[in-house]
Amino acid sequence: MTRLNDDSLVVIGGDAAGMSAASKVRRVQPDRKIIVFEKTSYTSYSACGIPYFISGTITDCDALVRRSPEEFRNKYNIDVHTQHLVTKVDTANKRIKVHDTENNREFWQEYGQLLIATGAKAYCPDVKGNSAENVFGISTLRSGIRVEKYIRENKPGKAVIIGGGYIGLEMAEALLMRGLKVSIVTRGSQVMDTLDPDMGIKISDAIKSLGINLYLNEEFKHFELDNDKVNAVVTTNNTIDADIVILGMGSAPNTTFLADSGIALGVKGAIKVNGQMQTNIPDVWAAGDCTETLNLVSKQQFYIALGTVANKTGLVAGTNLAGEKITFPGVVGTAVCKLCKYEVARTGLQEKELKKLNIEYVATTIDSTTRADYFPGNKKITVKLLAEKNSGRLLGGQIVGEEDAAKRIDVLAVAITHNLTLQNLIDMDLSYAPPFSPVWDPVQTCARKLIKYI
Amino acid sequence: MTRLNDDSLVVIGGDAAGMSAASKVRRVQPDRKIIVFEKTSYTSYSACGIPYFISGTITDCDALVRRSPEEFRNKYNIDVHTQHLVTKVDTANKRIKVHDTENNREFWQEYGQLLIATGAKAYCPDVKGNSAENVFGISTLRSGIRVEKYIRENKPGKAVIIGGGYIGLEMAEALLMRGLKVSIVTRGSQVMDTLDPDMGIKISDAIKSLGINLYLNEEFKHFELDNDKVNAVVTTNNTIDADIVILGMGSAPNTTFLADSGIALGVKGAIKVNGQMQTNIPDVWAAGDCTETLNLVSKQQFYIALGTVANKTGLVAGTNLAGEKITFPGVVGTAVCKLCKYEVARTGLQEKELKKLNIEYVATTIDSTTRADYFPGNKKITVKLLAEKNSGRLLGGQIVGEEDAAKRIDVLAVAITHNLTLQNLIDMDLSYAPPFSPVWDPVQTCARKLIKYI
Repeated sequence: MTRLNDDSLVVIGGDAAGMSAASKVRRVQPDRKIIVFEKTSYTSYSACGIPYFISGTITDCDALVRRSPEEFRNKYNIDVHTQHLVTKVDTANKRIKVHDTENNREFWQEYGQLLIATGAKAYCPDVKGNSAENVFGISTLRSGIRVEKYIRENKPGKAVIIGGGYIGLEMAEALLMRGLKVSIVTRGSQVMDTLDPDMGIKISDAIKSLGINLYLNEEFKHFELDNDKVNAVVTTNNTIDADIVILGMGSAPNTTFLADSGIALGVKGAIKVNGQMQTNIPDVWAAGDCTETLNLVSKQQFYIALGTVANKTGLVAGTNLAGEKITFPGVVGTAVCKLCKYEVARTGLQEKELKKLNIEYVATTIDSTTRADYFPGNKKITVKLLAEKNSGRLLGGQIVGEEDAAKRIDVLAVAITHNLTLQNLIDMDLSYAPPFSPVWDPVQTCARKLIKYI
Repeated sequence: MTRLNDDSLVVIGGDAAGMSAASKVRRVQPDRKIIVFEKTSYTSYSACGIPYFISGTITDCDALVRRSPEEFRNKYNIDVHTQHLVTKVDTANKRIKVHDTENNREFWQEYGQLLIATGAKAYCPDVKGNSAENVFGISTLRSGIRVEKYIRENKPGKAVIIGGGYIGLEMAEALLMRGLKVSIVTRGSQVMDTLDPDMGIKISDAIKSLGINLYLNEEFKHFELDNDKVNAVVTTNNTIDADIVILGMGSAPNTTFLADSGIALGVKGAIKVNGQMQTNIPDVWAAGDCTETLNLVSKQQFYIALGTVANKTGLVAGTNLAGEKITFPGVVGTAVCKLCKYEVARTGLQEKELKKLNIEYVATTIDSTTRADYFPGNKKITVKLLAEKNSGRLLGGQIVGEEDAAKRIDVLAVAITHNLTLQNLIDMDLSYAPPFSPVWDPVQTCARKLIKYI
């Protein structure tokens, strides 16, 4: 066991949040001791790019790596240990237990300050077969590489994706591109349950039009196994043959190793943090997909695992760890996904959340075009807005379109973050030229319709 | 002369602002008498689409017309008179003098309320030849049709465009597509002087790479004429052969007919209006390209001729004319333009304006990519941000990129309108997926760089 002076920073997890923080601390504190433990062989990679590596769109997985462990060691003087899994945090003695999985040895590491950035894993119920060799979550680059290798070596014919969220849809597209026959199983009435069902149905229809078998309103029950491999996925109503299974039921924070650490956990077991990304324990900080996040619209903590949030909270944690006080305000739940020709984007709260919060709201949807309607190549776009009754304050937005949904949702994200109203949006000086937009942007056209109902 | 009850609304100008207002009044007041006088044969068309009609991108100019005079008459019961030019406003007697150009007769028309929405024309200095048959401004659909017809019938070989702003650039692209040899003359150090020169140079370079002759830092002096046609454009240093001339030196409001009306004019002769679009004279309102506009960043009135502003102020004028009080807050100067593969976008104030206002500012520029840097098809994008010294409040943004500049400027437009800071922008929950953006959107990357300088 190494004794360090109290100034040392130990980081658990070497991806977006952990390395954003470590890099920031290094920039501000060039001489500080910084140690990182990462359970895989990779650091600082784009987890969001994994489906595009599996699809073959990106042929070299190294392209997803922003900075390698060697780069962090040599250029940044950050002491990165890969294939080191942290199994316990002993906050009373300010030390962590580390398992060097390559050399199969265990040791305790003291810390001056600790940052937990262990990310998330694909959620799977505790059923037999959930760790079979042909069942995959997509959470680390290592898991992505395993999927790609499994497809290449085993040539599975039939894929079943459990869950119809972002990862499920991106993986469906990826596996289609690899020539597999794809089924998606979801318990929702439509895929993409972060959209309201009237918007989700557009994506369900798009999925079916691609030749994907879509099983809606079906709960995953268990696997059927043959020689330790899953060969079928059993749902409420069906048994679906599977040569490979992808878990897309959402993410679960990697926090089980924190049991008995005294570190307070919240929603879905994610680490509770304040605006500076401090946990309830002195000198213990957390950032990224293993933490709770404040939803600025509901004013409640929730759990969201996204690269943008991981990068931002990592930077905020690092800034504070380096002694410059800064606060992460929270998020509005902006997310975007590409499914073949569709862009699917959302921000703010959806109808079921507003109902749960007893917020009186109005909602409407409009169909418009992405360019002036006379401009060649213009595409369809559908915008849904939700606003508070009476005040007209924007509460949520959902966009499905064949181009420019992603950047249009950002306008709504800014508006929602800063409590703007439908009238503010109508008044907004948004850009216009015929190749880029109708003269009233579709988000404004939707606001003009909705304001009549408030 | 027709006597009307005092309830009548008379509108001068049948394009975006005038017809937005008239349509809004009709929706709220189904029985009100509404009369519109329009000097051309067209109503409610997309003036911004004209370059794309001239280029041949849009083959039928009717596609640019949203609603025809017949439609307004028959479906909306709006009494539209085309080819009627209003030559005088007599506010003392609440009447206007109208010239029916088709039948060459003049008459007086009384009004209960008057809305002036006469738009703008291409500015040209008072030099001989400025109304020659081969010299064109692009301000009305009629003028666009004339240009297209002139090219088709006269097959000019050499075009000279005077001015390097939006219209100049869009027309340069259009004329190139029609096979003309194109020259642009501008007195600025770069084209697109609504950008700072360090961003404008990118567009100057792009223009040159298209084979356009670009004359920078050259003032237009006068025309050389041959048989009443211009055959050369004379600048400070050059005489440039021209078979056709396009005026792109900016817009001038159509307000000369208001001399002696008592209606107050402001910047560049544009009509002064309040937030409800009322002029200084009771019962006289104005909207669109003939009016001044409040710049929300400089807090000063300025002149901007844009379809978005015309539509918005027309709607605000109409809403107030119909008795529902509403205020137009102003604009931040958002504008966007396509030049071949480039999207050019700007909002807020530029360096020269900030200097004039004695606002202490910081500015920086970053180069980034429009998608994750590993994602196929990603394009270059350059973002410039300007922010107030100390406070970090965003003051302006300029983006030049090969995709998605237009929608990214909108994020900055919302931020600037609502006085957000660089830190607000960094914190912002913008959308991210590898096909659409790097994990830090380029506007955030620029903010992260600039915040170090405040």
